[in-house]
Amino acid sequence: MESVESRQERHRLVDADELTRFAVDALCAAGASHGEAAVTAEVLVAADLGGVESHGVARLRRYVEGLRSGAINRHGEAEIVSDRGSVCVLDARNGLGQPALCTAVDLAVDRARRFGTSAVMVRRSNHMGIAGWFAERAARAGTFAMVSTNAVPQVAPMGTNEPMFGTNPFCYAVPAEDDVLCFDGATSTVSRGKLEQLDRLGEPMRPGWALGPDGSATTDIPATVEGLIHRKGYALLPLGGGDQGHGGHKGSALSLFVELLCGPLAGARWSRHTYQDGEGGLGHFVFCLSLEALGGSDTIRADVDRLAREVRGAAPVDRDTPVRVPGDRRRRLSGARRTHGVPVLDSVLADLHDIARFVGVTPVRARHAGG
Amino acid sequence: MESVESRQERHRLVDADELTRFAVDALCAAGASHGEAAVTAEVLVAADLGGVESHGVARLRRYVEGLRSGAINRHGEAEIVSDRGSVCVLDARNGLGQPALCTAVDLAVDRARRFGTSAVMVRRSNHMGIAGWFAERAARAGTFAMVSTNAVPQVAPMGTNEPMFGTNPFCYAVPAEDDVLCFDGATSTVSRGKLEQLDRLGEPMRPGWALGPDGSATTDIPATVEGLIHRKGYALLPLGGGDQGHGGHKGSALSLFVELLCGPLAGARWSRHTYQDGEGGLGHFVFCLSLEALGGSDTIRADVDRLAREVRGAAPVDRDTPVRVPGDRRRRLSGARRTHGVPVLDSVLADLHDIARFVGVTPVRARHAGG
Repeated sequence: MESVESRQERHRLVDADELTRFAVDALCAAGASHGEAAVTAEVLVAADLGGVESHGVARLRRYVEGLRSGAINRHGEAEIVSDRGSVCVLDARNGLGQPALCTAVDLAVDRARRFGTSAVMVRRSNHMGIAGWFAERAARAGTFAMVSTNAVPQVAPMGTNEPMFGTNPFCYAVPAEDDVLCFDGATSTVSRGKLEQLDRLGEPMRPGWALGPDGSATTDIPATVEGLIHRKGYALLPLGGGDQGHGGHKGSALSLFVELLCGPLAGARWSRHTYQDGEGGLGHFVFCLSLEALGGSDTIRADVDRLAREVRGAAPVDRDTPVRVPGDRRRRLSGARRTHGVPVLDSVLADLHDIARFVGVTPVRARHAGG
Repeated sequence: MESVESRQERHRLVDADELTRFAVDALCAAGASHGEAAVTAEVLVAADLGGVESHGVARLRRYVEGLRSGAINRHGEAEIVSDRGSVCVLDARNGLGQPALCTAVDLAVDRARRFGTSAVMVRRSNHMGIAGWFAERAARAGTFAMVSTNAVPQVAPMGTNEPMFGTNPFCYAVPAEDDVLCFDGATSTVSRGKLEQLDRLGEPMRPGWALGPDGSATTDIPATVEGLIHRKGYALLPLGGGDQGHGGHKGSALSLFVELLCGPLAGARWSRHTYQDGEGGLGHFVFCLSLEALGGSDTIRADVDRLAREVRGAAPVDRDTPVRVPGDRRRRLSGARRTHGVPVLDSVLADLHDIARFVGVTPVRARHAGG
């Protein structure tokens, strides 16, 4: 995922706090409680700050419209339906995904502190933004965490062009000495959001990312995006692509790993059964492992740091491109954007103005022109 | 990983029980206890049965020689060094990896039954064969399990050609209705064992699997294998290859996930620090999540089965190649080989005869000629 600064379409800079203020106002006006709106807005803006614009405020409309139409339950506070100490199951009651998953993470951290390790599963939930925000929250509380979600089927396992899995992020985070190391990426080679972003910016897609209705590779972005949305026989390919030679069976298995945990194990819907009968029915999972329970949080943090430094210090293939560990780019970008403002594409800004009009809140104030 | 039957080099068929008998005898003659030898032999033969010949009896020599030379501790029974209920740490005392990890799995299953979820880490261990055998054991006991290990560094993260990670398997297993669904694969696109196998069989490697000392793609199998063994600047590439376009950053992060858990979190060595001062110092981890603790093992097993059936039922791109779920091929192959015998390449059989001579045990009796 690349930053929008260097791209074609014009953008304006917006203060992160102002972007958050607007998202909270819009979600509250659409019927969310202030607490739910605050968590949801924070996750959205964290995506924009970190350069994951595909999961940022560009997605606000779906939440606002969902809340207004009733597709997302305005009174859907998550409740614990099963509590076995280190393992709990939450019912999100078809509310917003972000507050439900945040409740799950805080519960998982609490249980990992008490028992050493924990698993919390969420059912009857909705889209929840970037998994990394949640995993980082758990890592800052002293645990090694995995967080994921399933989603509407868009990814074809190796051997078919029928979408069977969501883009199902693989996501983990671990405390290092002064910070947190976090990876969060779709288990498809690319996500649909990424394709939409490339399309806006006039950049091409590669063969090996998606299949068309005849089962052969496609590089037509608009047709692929349209075909994925309307389920017209298009499918994204898993990490490793569509054949065994580059590990497509491994990417498929990784995607299935998430689908199993978030679907059958969470007691949630999966794949083609999601978004039926007026609700998404998505599942999420959280695993936490307390570093204290492993006997030595300080030593482990120092060793995580050491491993990260060793990787960053490896000889780069391209002399000008140092080797990164997951989260390095996002952290740098977030810092810069907190200071200088978040670049919001003109098309996204127009969409936010439109939202402001129809829910009746103060529009986003851009800082100054950019791009 | 493909079966040897259709390949160039001649093989002979050996009864699985006879192969196990021989491996146990050889390991015992080299100084292992009968219990340790039995577990180790079972894991090796399971690999040969399942078509993962790169991890089968072809690797017996390294264990036998390791035990005889003292590189592997003949009296290295694993001991619990930290017990916090759902989280335990084992010290394998530089013994064989298989019995140490088997002890860890049985402990993790026990703790998951008591607490719902568990994590057991192993330090000071050695090579432990196929992770799938261990994950399947935990799944047959009613848990969703992840098992992994780190290894000598052979895999370069995206952006460098310096090997920083082991081939670090990503492996999980979950109980279905009558069976277990299990995935086990290296987080590199291919493993070194796979390259050695292709070389024996005269098949080519693909660009995108490995880098040479100058940082560019190589397809020279002997040079790559030699360069990996003697650390001469060669490196395997992670799943997704060496660039971001096909997700090399995702494969790198997956490999790092395993290295973090098995290294810093297990209190074990990692990457270039493994195999120093006369011991491997490898780490393993086991996570278990009890299906009972999720409230409804029968429902979950039925749903796992349903999801697997849906994937198998997806329209195949190639009409004659049905879509598989992880473990389908291995299960079919294992059944056939249990009945008809395990194909062992003549070169591997010659190696086993050589082992028989120098440890003084009855050589493997092949069933009849094949291939």
